[in-house]
Amino acid sequence: MNTIEVCFTPKLYSEIVTNNNFIVVMVDILRASTSICAAFANGVEAIIPVASLDEAKEYKAKGYLVASEREGIVMGFADFGNSAFNFMTEAVKGKTIAYSTTNGTQAIELAKNAEGLVIGAFSNITALSRWLINQHSNVVILCAGWKNKFNLEDSIFAGALIEQLLTSADLKMDCDSAEAALDLWSIAKSNPLAYIQKAAHRERLRKLKLDDVLEFTFQLDTANVVPILKDGVLVNIQI
Amino acid sequence: MNTIEVCFTPKLYSEIVTNNNFIVVMVDILRASTSICAAFANGVEAIIPVASLDEAKEYKAKGYLVASEREGIVMGFADFGNSAFNFMTEAVKGKTIAYSTTNGTQAIELAKNAEGLVIGAFSNITALSRWLINQHSNVVILCAGWKNKFNLEDSIFAGALIEQLLTSADLKMDCDSAEAALDLWSIAKSNPLAYIQKAAHRERLRKLKLDDVLEFTFQLDTANVVPILKDGVLVNIQI
Repeated sequence: MNTIEVCFTPKLYSEIVTNNNFIVVMVDILRASTSICAAFANGVEAIIPVASLDEAKEYKAKGYLVASEREGIVMGFADFGNSAFNFMTEAVKGKTIAYSTTNGTQAIELAKNAEGLVIGAFSNITALSRWLINQHSNVVILCAGWKNKFNLEDSIFAGALIEQLLTSADLKMDCDSAEAALDLWSIAKSNPLAYIQKAAHRERLRKLKLDDVLEFTFQLDTANVVPILKDGVLVNIQI
Repeated sequence: MNTIEVCFTPKLYSEIVTNNNFIVVMVDILRASTSICAAFANGVEAIIPVASLDEAKEYKAKGYLVASEREGIVMGFADFGNSAFNFMTEAVKGKTIAYSTTNGTQAIELAKNAEGLVIGAFSNITALSRWLINQHSNVVILCAGWKNKFNLEDSIFAGALIEQLLTSADLKMDCDSAEAALDLWSIAKSNPLAYIQKAAHRERLRKLKLDDVLEFTFQLDTANVVPILKDGVLVNIQI
């Protein structure tokens, strides 16, 4: 029987990981993971995650399209930021994009030695859970969080994914974080968008200037894709 | 208005703390915090938290009573382990105890530079919340967790304490962790003992050999005390 664990922030990854015998699902719901799924659903060829701004600039100089922001602000040298809508234009079809964000790409860097690394969002949750169940591997859901802190949106997504994964008799939860994520999802699921607009959370969302894309972020199954890291580059698994 | 934050594990403390302008509530429900509250409710004079086993041995050599365990096992040189029941005997009345545990005392060490450091458990929740409300300070609830990981019992206690603190118009939640803790408590509160005996959790509890003390751990207000750290030593605030 295989296990499901949840890592609420990248800072806790080293505590959970004692080996690399698992597939990591990287989650950064409000930005990277929803944007990456949107990109592949809209014909992007590949996405190169870059952790530093200097690397992102180098890719720009080489002629790549570059998506880069820090704390919600698009970097001056970049072609666009990381709102999912930026990845859904005609201009990106068939292209390879170099992508650097505050949380998401740094989480990818952290987990790159796992057996597999895929991207999870509400937008690809059904495609992803079906694929994961077929792998018969342990699963670690790595929440990108917010500046190494716990956040609600990534955590309730972890719970939503666990709910789907538990339909397989081959998978069971193996840590308190997974149990907590599933419980939070049980509260949030009737209206996830309303749930994450809680008092303390709303202030952070406001600073991220997400008004345009927030509703889209919580729509289920708008992207029938499973982005996976292959040789340092994200590509879509043909499903 | 003052803020309430929750730190789900000691590993995340440095991310939350940008200054020391808050009172820390240290929580290690299954062991240290419930035991420390039981000790003061039963007439213990003072408790010296010691982080290392070597230090604990030194206190033993000096003639102190010593409580020490690692991963649920009582250390050979110690007088007893850290089940709350060990701190509720005639032998401890009026004594000073040197106390070293896996999680709890290490969390105390971490937070010792805060404006104040008090101990929280279900057993002193009402006394503690009344005292905290009267301080008109920011509050950080520091969950000792389990080997730097998130755990359910400390997190639902955080939620239970927040519920009481929010009866003050002077306090508000200021992070997603606090919102999540309160939500988990909303699920757990009708039967906390049943709640924490979830599948993934039960195995860890079993290893801790807590059968004797588990039920006691979730009883409310058995200890009308507020243990506070003064010059490196825990004493009871006279309330």
